[in-house]
Amino acid sequence: MPEPRFEVLGIGNAIVDVIARTEEDFLVRNRLVKGSMRLVDNEEAERLYGEMAAAIEASGGCAGNTAAGVASFGGAAAFIGKVAGDQLGQIYRHDMKGTGVAFDTPVLTDGAPTGRTMILITPDGERTMNTYLGAAHELSPHDIDRDTVAASAITYLEGYLWDPPPAKEAFRKAAEYAHSAGRRVALTLSDSFCVDRYRAEFLGLIRDGVVDLLFANQAELHSLYETADFDTAVDLLRKDCRLAAVTLGADGALVVTSQGIERVPATPVETVVDTTGAGDLFAAGFLFGEARRMPHADSARLGALAAAEVIGHIGPRPMTSLKGLAEQAGFRL
Amino acid sequence: MPEPRFEVLGIGNAIVDVIARTEEDFLVRNRLVKGSMRLVDNEEAERLYGEMAAAIEASGGCAGNTAAGVASFGGAAAFIGKVAGDQLGQIYRHDMKGTGVAFDTPVLTDGAPTGRTMILITPDGERTMNTYLGAAHELSPHDIDRDTVAASAITYLEGYLWDPPPAKEAFRKAAEYAHSAGRRVALTLSDSFCVDRYRAEFLGLIRDGVVDLLFANQAELHSLYETADFDTAVDLLRKDCRLAAVTLGADGALVVTSQGIERVPATPVETVVDTTGAGDLFAAGFLFGEARRMPHADSARLGALAAAEVIGHIGPRPMTSLKGLAEQAGFRL
Repeated sequence: MPEPRFEVLGIGNAIVDVIARTEEDFLVRNRLVKGSMRLVDNEEAERLYGEMAAAIEASGGCAGNTAAGVASFGGAAAFIGKVAGDQLGQIYRHDMKGTGVAFDTPVLTDGAPTGRTMILITPDGERTMNTYLGAAHELSPHDIDRDTVAASAITYLEGYLWDPPPAKEAFRKAAEYAHSAGRRVALTLSDSFCVDRYRAEFLGLIRDGVVDLLFANQAELHSLYETADFDTAVDLLRKDCRLAAVTLGADGALVVTSQGIERVPATPVETVVDTTGAGDLFAAGFLFGEARRMPHADSARLGALAAAEVIGHIGPRPMTSLKGLAEQAGFRL
Repeated sequence: MPEPRFEVLGIGNAIVDVIARTEEDFLVRNRLVKGSMRLVDNEEAERLYGEMAAAIEASGGCAGNTAAGVASFGGAAAFIGKVAGDQLGQIYRHDMKGTGVAFDTPVLTDGAPTGRTMILITPDGERTMNTYLGAAHELSPHDIDRDTVAASAITYLEGYLWDPPPAKEAFRKAAEYAHSAGRRVALTLSDSFCVDRYRAEFLGLIRDGVVDLLFANQAELHSLYETADFDTAVDLLRKDCRLAAVTLGADGALVVTSQGIERVPATPVETVVDTTGAGDLFAAGFLFGEARRMPHADSARLGALAAAEVIGHIGPRPMTSLKGLAEQAGFRL
């Protein structure tokens, strides 16, 4: 098996984040569930944007954020996702390349505009997301470049891909390419509502070995196993999955394997400004460590470090070199 | 004279900021003068953007930032500036309205795209700006709505308008409308290079009474009077101008009138993250105070408070209610 050209390939919705601070009552008035992601159509997107305060724009999307994080660690990263040829699409492409991520998915022409997520940040730093998928919705199996997948140590897929049927097909194809090349496949469950919608299918992917490495937060894990008892959920997860990382917010993360469970603490943060990207950046550190065959706990420590960086500022991607931060923390990358 | 409908009307280049962190050597390699603004054509804009790291986008522009700041204080603010009908133009319009600023300048159709400033933030928090004016360059006298100017206690103009000839005409027309309605006109010198280009004309505007209230930082003041001696420059300014505010960065600001000079300290800031918008937000506080006929020193204190807020985060506009901050600091607005 040739050496991988990329350590991590992210495949997901290419989305520009539109980020504004808001008070809690705005969520209540608009019946938004704090901390969740919901899909909206163009009309609802326009309505909500019209109500929203002034915002800033930043390239985002789960897997895109993760790929950017891997590159910030000094890793070789690639991304597959769909943008339009509009200004937001150009911005998205620039930001990927500017971070050093290989990104060559053909632009969507004559279709929907580049996708957007309106992210509302409440005073506690929590984010509530409203996603208009736009061009991202058009990601199809044709966009999955077999050579890129085969050349990536880990292909990382976001659960959100499971919403549009062609993206689901693209997901399956990518996993198949990866495994036939002897590579690994990782999945993030993305959101507890997403798990609610596709519980049986996600469990199938995990149990059938389509997924080698799973990322979940507490809410997603509870939803996956339909239990309010955390220990029960973790026990079930250990039986289903060779390797999983369960993020616990301020309580750090668990590395779950059939051999056992290891807890890694969160990296302390002075002020939580914006939690957007926390899970994505944890995944970046963990995947980077795994691709380099570090001990799982060290991978999780890199994840914790990356998550701490991104929640200290507005925007879903690192603003400081994660390689530099990791080296300051004693890692030799 | 009827009560003004707006406390402050800002007229200036409507520009979206494209903000990225950079190391000092990037400035050196691209021969950029730290802390300055330069105009670039489309080709140079594309080249530099191609070299730049991943960025975030935020609505900006001097007078636009100031209008947004006035609105954040709870003031009635309006803005005149030119954007295109593209995605960045829609974002700009949304952000103005989302802040509560009246903004009704007709969109530029069939012309250049919405203007952009590529802002490079060095590790010291200083910003270096590269502006492609695009649609902003097309601001013309036709865009100056007489009723809006006449209904504004203070019309605030940016020195940058002096670059494109039609905008210069628009500037003159706005000042004329304001004075015939018995209102005041304020000018910011914008940038020391801008002063270098138009020194005689700016001095003319000040001495002829076209400008009632002047904003300058130290570098701009030195450039205006072509002297390295600060006290000499301030003495000359006192003779030329009824009321001026000179910002001194961490040393606060001077209120300069024919009666005397008063120093107001800077509001302490924990970490300077990004100085973009500091001058614009100082102007917002000062103008808001002046429009409400506060003592000049109190106006300057509001300016210092607003500047401190904006340099504590990335982006050129306040992310916290300035009204709230001012009330916490003991002001009753």
